[in-house]
Amino acid sequence: MSPHPAPLVSLVGAGPGDPELIAVRALRRIEAAEVVVYDRLVSDQILDLVPAGATRIYVGKANGQHTLPQDEINDLLVKLARAGHRVVRLKGGDPFIFGRGSEEAEYLARHKVPYEVIPGITAASGCTANLGIPLTHRGLATGVRFVTGHCRNDIDLELNWDSLADPDTTLVIYMGLANVTQIAERLIAAGLPPDTPAAAIAQGTLPAQRLCRSRLADLPRVATEARLAAPVLIVIGRVLALADVLAAPVEAPGLSDDRTRTARHG
Amino acid sequence: MSPHPAPLVSLVGAGPGDPELIAVRALRRIEAAEVVVYDRLVSDQILDLVPAGATRIYVGKANGQHTLPQDEINDLLVKLARAGHRVVRLKGGDPFIFGRGSEEAEYLARHKVPYEVIPGITAASGCTANLGIPLTHRGLATGVRFVTGHCRNDIDLELNWDSLADPDTTLVIYMGLANVTQIAERLIAAGLPPDTPAAAIAQGTLPAQRLCRSRLADLPRVATEARLAAPVLIVIGRVLALADVLAAPVEAPGLSDDRTRTARHG
Repeated sequence: MSPHPAPLVSLVGAGPGDPELIAVRALRRIEAAEVVVYDRLVSDQILDLVPAGATRIYVGKANGQHTLPQDEINDLLVKLARAGHRVVRLKGGDPFIFGRGSEEAEYLARHKVPYEVIPGITAASGCTANLGIPLTHRGLATGVRFVTGHCRNDIDLELNWDSLADPDTTLVIYMGLANVTQIAERLIAAGLPPDTPAAAIAQGTLPAQRLCRSRLADLPRVATEARLAAPVLIVIGRVLALADVLAAPVEAPGLSDDRTRTARHG
Repeated sequence: MSPHPAPLVSLVGAGPGDPELIAVRALRRIEAAEVVVYDRLVSDQILDLVPAGATRIYVGKANGQHTLPQDEINDLLVKLARAGHRVVRLKGGDPFIFGRGSEEAEYLARHKVPYEVIPGITAASGCTANLGIPLTHRGLATGVRFVTGHCRNDIDLELNWDSLADPDTTLVIYMGLANVTQIAERLIAAGLPPDTPAAAIAQGTLPAQRLCRSRLADLPRVATEARLAAPVLIVIGRVLALADVLAAPVEAPGLSDDRTRTARHG
C-alpha cells in the first residue's frame, strides 16, 4: 500500500510576499507538501511555512539566467509526481499571470499528471493595497492593465505603446526595472503626459518594502538612484495621486501586524 | 477600560467565492470581526466564516439598485468604527479592483478612522485558474486587461474599443453580462476577429459554477440562452484555447476538495 494515495502537483500562487497574503488553500497545500519546488520570487517568509521534513528544490531564475531551464523544470515536476510525491510548485504572485505557470500546467496535463492550480494574489493588487494605491477608481481609472517589462536578450520590448499610453487605465508593469528608461520614454513618446504619476515598488508587502514615487518622466532616474532590489513592480496612472490620502498613517494600536502604518520612501 | 482597544475597519477582499481562496489574514479578520458589512458579490460560503456572535449588515447592490447608496455605506463604516466595533467590510474579489473600495478607503482616511486594506484574489484570476484558463501565455497573450462592463442607467459603455480590440491581450470584463451584445459588437467592429475565443463564467469557484464558451461573435447568444446567474465574468482572448488541454479531467483520488475535476458547460 502506497503512503501516497494522491500524487498530485499543486501549482500554488505564493502571492506578493507577505505569508499572510496567501490563500487558505495554498497554506494547506504547503503544510502538506512533501516536495516544494520554488523560484526566486518566492519570499523567505513564505518558505518558512514549508514543513521541516519537506524537500525544497530551488529552480529560481535570476535575471536572464536560469538555474534550471523551463523544460527541465517541467520534467522535474512530472518525475517528482510519478515518484509518488505530493508536490507543491510555488510561484510568486499568481501562477497564471506571467511566470510561465501555464507552460508547466500544459506539460503536466499532456503527461496525464494530476495537478491543480491555486490562484494567488498577484503583485499588482498585493503590493499596492497597503500603499493606498487603488488599481481602479471612478474618475481616475476605468480599468487596469498588466504587462511584463522583461524581455529576453536585451532586445527591445515588443509592446503596443500607443495602446498602453492610455491616461484612463492604470498600467502595471511586472519585472520592468531593467527597462524602466525605455518604458518611460516610449509611453511619453506615445502621448502619455510626462507628469503622469508613477511608482516603483520593491519587495512589496515584505519588511524591506520600498516605494519610489515620481512623475513618469523622472521615474527612470528616481528608480535607478534608489538601487531597488528585485522584485520591482512599476505602477503608472492617476490613481497614484490617491496614495497621499489613502496611505496617511493613522494610529491603530492593538493589532500585531498593523498594515495601516506604511513606510513611504522616495 | 474598553474591550475594543483597536477600533479598526478592515476592507477585506473576499476573493472569487470559494472560502478557501481568501487570504490567511482575511480569514483571521473575519473570525475576529464584531460587525461584518457585506454586499451582493460575497458568497454564502464566505459568510459562513463569520462568527455566530457577529452582527451582519447587508448593503448589497442588485443591478442598478442600491440597498444602501455608497455615501450611506461610507457613513455607516465610520459610525460603526467610532462606536468601537471591530468592523470587517467584505468586498467581492479585491477591494481595489472595481467595487468602489477605494471610495470607502478615502472616506475612512478623511475621517481619520484607522483602516487597512487586505487584498483579495480578484475574479479574473480566481475564476479562471480551475478552468485551465491562463491570463497570460507566451505566444498567446503578452498581457491582461480588466475593465468593467457595467454602466449606470443603460447609457452606452464608455470604453476605448480600438484599444481594447487587441488580439495579444487577454481581456477580462467584470459585470459585463447585461452589455454582452454591445461588447461583442463593438470589439468586432474595432477589428477583433469574430472567431476570437470567448467565455462567460458564472459564479466562478462556487459549486454552482458555470462556464459558457464560444467564439466572440456568438457569445451574446450563448451567454443569454444559458441564463447565467450573477456574478458573471467575461474573458476574451486566445488563451481560452488552452483550456481544452489544461482543464482536461485527471483522476486525483484522496483530495477532499479536488480542483482538478472541472465541470464544463456550454
